[in-house]
Amino acid sequence: MRPFVFINAAMSIDGRITDWRRRQVRISCRDDMKRVDRLRAESDAVLVGIGTVIADNPSLTVKSKELREKRIKEGKSPNPVRVVLDSKARLPLNSNILSNDAETLVAVSKIARRDRINLLKDVAKVVVCGEKKVDIPLLLNILFENGIRKLMVEGGGRVISSFLKEKVVDRLFIYVGGIAFGEGVNLVEGRLDPPVKFELLKAERVGRGFVLEANPVYKTEATDMQ
Amino acid sequence: MRPFVFINAAMSIDGRITDWRRRQVRISCRDDMKRVDRLRAESDAVLVGIGTVIADNPSLTVKSKELREKRIKEGKSPNPVRVVLDSKARLPLNSNILSNDAETLVAVSKIARRDRINLLKDVAKVVVCGEKKVDIPLLLNILFENGIRKLMVEGGGRVISSFLKEKVVDRLFIYVGGIAFGEGVNLVEGRLDPPVKFELLKAERVGRGFVLEANPVYKTEATDMQ
Repeated sequence: MRPFVFINAAMSIDGRITDWRRRQVRISCRDDMKRVDRLRAESDAVLVGIGTVIADNPSLTVKSKELREKRIKEGKSPNPVRVVLDSKARLPLNSNILSNDAETLVAVSKIARRDRINLLKDVAKVVVCGEKKVDIPLLLNILFENGIRKLMVEGGGRVISSFLKEKVVDRLFIYVGGIAFGEGVNLVEGRLDPPVKFELLKAERVGRGFVLEANPVYKTEATDMQ
Repeated sequence: MRPFVFINAAMSIDGRITDWRRRQVRISCRDDMKRVDRLRAESDAVLVGIGTVIADNPSLTVKSKELREKRIKEGKSPNPVRVVLDSKARLPLNSNILSNDAETLVAVSKIARRDRINLLKDVAKVVVCGEKKVDIPLLLNILFENGIRKLMVEGGGRVISSFLKEKVVDRLFIYVGGIAFGEGVNLVEGRLDPPVKFELLKAERVGRGFVLEANPVYKTEATDMQ
């Protein structure tokens, strides 16, 4: 059993999620940030890769006070659980993702150094799963057993590629913004062979851009929530 | 003075125009191929880079008999002029783009070998413009003086990047198809610094995908045709 898994990301018109410096720059607009905040608030957990944490230092919390209060009324924590894919346990201890605003789970692999794991255990939950890399299907199973029914994957490109390769993605939301970089991290970073096919469901105007909604066409074992 | 310049390309959901082998694979659908054929038939010239010619060997002709006949009725040639950006005059003499179906113009730079230029002159028009690379604004001026009022740029990624850098693009049409590659040639290949901004005009369902229509927001000197 695994949670319903959806990817949300903002990309440029040429498929980049960063500029050539591999840094996140503003691609989406204010309306889209509200949409992303709602998606977060509706999720039980949000997941990013260690590369994104180191490059951008996100806090991954729900920004809207109303949405946090709505969660509390529903008997939930104000923010979803934050999950970091971090095979080598490299997560810096001063990362915003370790703030007190929400619970954080760091998924590491067996090659992570024991001393790093111990340091992280003081500030987060640590799950060791997978030999050299985090075993994503196993992690999803662990998340499910811990009550996570809806997981939002926020990137970066390598994490998105890994999830697609593992065929554990139920839906994809891509905000396409009005900018082109010509170089940078791509939405999907890492060869998919064979390529992954999608059914394109809709393209919806959000602010100054469009949100594409798509379903991978491979069969999934997702717990059908939607 | 220069022609109205528009880019048309089909990209994957992750912004690639080829698979990881850097070969063109089917991204668009039958309906989109009809759309592209109409765009070609409405253009005075279609342009591609030498990389695309060598990788895919396109003929760049109008496929629909009706559309060719319509052009003839309007006093035009059945097919638009085909233009190849080929700084070093590498175009193979057996390329489909040199077929008798349409006129072909090969734009080379001053570093092209004289013997190669002479070979090409037997089978195409050759224009020498630019020192090491083809001077795109100068080429556009020459095209305009030769009656080209509407130019369709079909790729690949390096050509699209060069046109955007030169700020000579009036409109962009991108078909987004339901496939992800994770590796391959991007829609725009070559750092844009600063990034180029676009106004996203619309996203329209075409067959199984969506066509995004956008205008670069820099001021252009285009001859206003539309």
